[in-house]
Amino acid sequence: MSGYFSPKYRELSPYVPGEQPKDRKYVKLNTNESPFPPSPIALEYAARALAGLNLYSDPDCTELRRRIALTYGVTPDCVICGNGSDDILSFAFQAFCDGETPAVFADITYGFYRVFAARERIPVRIIPLKDDLTIDPEEYHNAEGTVFIANPNAPTGIALTVGEIEGILKSNEKNVVVIDEAYVDFGAESCVPLIKKYRNLFVTQTFSKSRSLAGGRLGFGIADPGLIRDLDTVRCSINPYNVNAVTQAAGVGTLSDGEYTAENCKKIIKTRAYLTDRLASLGFRLTDSLANFVFAKHEEISGDVLCAKLREKGVLVRRFDTERIRDHLRITVGSDEQTDKLLCAIGEIL
Amino acid sequence: MSGYFSPKYRELSPYVPGEQPKDRKYVKLNTNESPFPPSPIALEYAARALAGLNLYSDPDCTELRRRIALTYGVTPDCVICGNGSDDILSFAFQAFCDGETPAVFADITYGFYRVFAARERIPVRIIPLKDDLTIDPEEYHNAEGTVFIANPNAPTGIALTVGEIEGILKSNEKNVVVIDEAYVDFGAESCVPLIKKYRNLFVTQTFSKSRSLAGGRLGFGIADPGLIRDLDTVRCSINPYNVNAVTQAAGVGTLSDGEYTAENCKKIIKTRAYLTDRLASLGFRLTDSLANFVFAKHEEISGDVLCAKLREKGVLVRRFDTERIRDHLRITVGSDEQTDKLLCAIGEIL
Repeated sequence: MSGYFSPKYRELSPYVPGEQPKDRKYVKLNTNESPFPPSPIALEYAARALAGLNLYSDPDCTELRRRIALTYGVTPDCVICGNGSDDILSFAFQAFCDGETPAVFADITYGFYRVFAARERIPVRIIPLKDDLTIDPEEYHNAEGTVFIANPNAPTGIALTVGEIEGILKSNEKNVVVIDEAYVDFGAESCVPLIKKYRNLFVTQTFSKSRSLAGGRLGFGIADPGLIRDLDTVRCSINPYNVNAVTQAAGVGTLSDGEYTAENCKKIIKTRAYLTDRLASLGFRLTDSLANFVFAKHEEISGDVLCAKLREKGVLVRRFDTERIRDHLRITVGSDEQTDKLLCAIGEIL
Repeated sequence: MSGYFSPKYRELSPYVPGEQPKDRKYVKLNTNESPFPPSPIALEYAARALAGLNLYSDPDCTELRRRIALTYGVTPDCVICGNGSDDILSFAFQAFCDGETPAVFADITYGFYRVFAARERIPVRIIPLKDDLTIDPEEYHNAEGTVFIANPNAPTGIALTVGEIEGILKSNEKNVVVIDEAYVDFGAESCVPLIKKYRNLFVTQTFSKSRSLAGGRLGFGIADPGLIRDLDTVRCSINPYNVNAVTQAAGVGTLSDGEYTAENCKKIIKTRAYLTDRLASLGFRLTDSLANFVFAKHEEISGDVLCAKLREKGVLVRRFDTERIRDHLRITVGSDEQTDKLLCAIGEIL
């Protein structure tokens, strides 16, 4: 670091995303991308937006917010858009946490929550998952802080029910509860319908997983208009043009082709079931994942050895060097062909 | 605002970008966009990137940074990319300012500097422009804070020379000096070559003006690798995938077609000279702008009246409700056709 770096950040460890190596072609099952290309309608809308790139994008994402609102049965003033859902989650940490209002989240969850809190010097209260890696919803009742829950959770893939989350919302009238639904489309229940009932609920979603637009960078959040106005004040104090014009168009195109997304999710769910069975029969123990990844631990081989051997064979999976889950691998559910290559590589290693 | 909004932001006034109205078709000269479409090569590269949008963008912008480095005769570790140059400027406020290190900038300059400082609760030291709206470089010597200078300045369009900026750099060894070169390609001198000599210099540029990619959201910064590493720590604690894949490709395409950008800049410079002459002959006083806008004040009509009358006639220009410049209009130098329409409308009003 240079001598000019503000002391407030000298201890900051940035988030480390899954690697994107360029040295050879890999079966890439480490960042939970969709194996399917964007919807043809999304591509058509995006292509049409290119020629107008000399003009600024709409800072209000008017048409995109209208389409998201329509899709989820809310009004556009309940919607905020961002440059990926990380953008939106960062706004929530800024808007709803501070020295007096800690961030409350699980010990094992999306790794960026810790980084957002550290960057903003927000105190955190960490609630450990139970031994079986599930969340005990009652531990989030009367949380005395802003609650962040990934549902399904990452990297476990395990989801709470809407009823369990409603219990958390009811007991936290004084706190905002953020439900990060990045992976909700692969079998879990969305909490979006609850925003009409709970003014303390903020739900975030992304176009990076089920909607095949990870490279476009598009996320959104849905809440009562009161929370959205606060988040928008933060957004417009950082970057009012946060979503580029091509991605806004691609997002509108994607939502007008809901059937394509739904079909792709069905395929992933089917492949997940197959992959889960096969891994279990190869000696892995798996969580009950409702996401587009499985979370698996082999009874005999350590996580780092298996991860490294898979890499040698051209298969990338994700592993976290965290005490309780160091022997687990988070493996994206890809195409059938990718899944075959993964299983083939594991067969050779065992 | 909701009852959940952190008290730290309750006084925050977000940045207000130039309006993007949709009620009718306007001659849009209010946000300094390029009137020319993106380079055909940029469009070709961008179109080719669309099909792969299901995969994350390169968080390191490897190819784009390589091309920027090549263009400016530096190494890639001297370059950081962002979702517009606002993204990059925001990183600089975060990395190099804090309670002990104020931000130092002019009373009349890019309006977002005040917002960035307010959001981060950074103290500011404001240095008024001279009566003729120029910057006195000596007032920035030994600044005792991080210096932010837009060069050419906005909304005046007036530029400092590289020699004047070198004087500021020399006297501020303990401080970072940020030179915001959003408008540098229209006739001012870039400070990029100085980064090899001054480790406290950070130069930012954008693809939004001369490079016809405002809607793609692309900015970059160039500095000694020490500063870049600090900025990258901040970037990766906010959003490592901050630049989407299509825009990265469009950026590479744009830089491989430098002639197109250079030709467009020549056209703007020519039209600016013509517009300046015509406005002067219509009774306006103008600053000596080296940007893609002119800054003009009529001797007899107030700024708000003229701005409103132009709007009625379908011409949008920008006006700032700030004491010293309330009667000035900032008018983008557009195409010849747009310029004719503007002059025609002004002729009718006077």
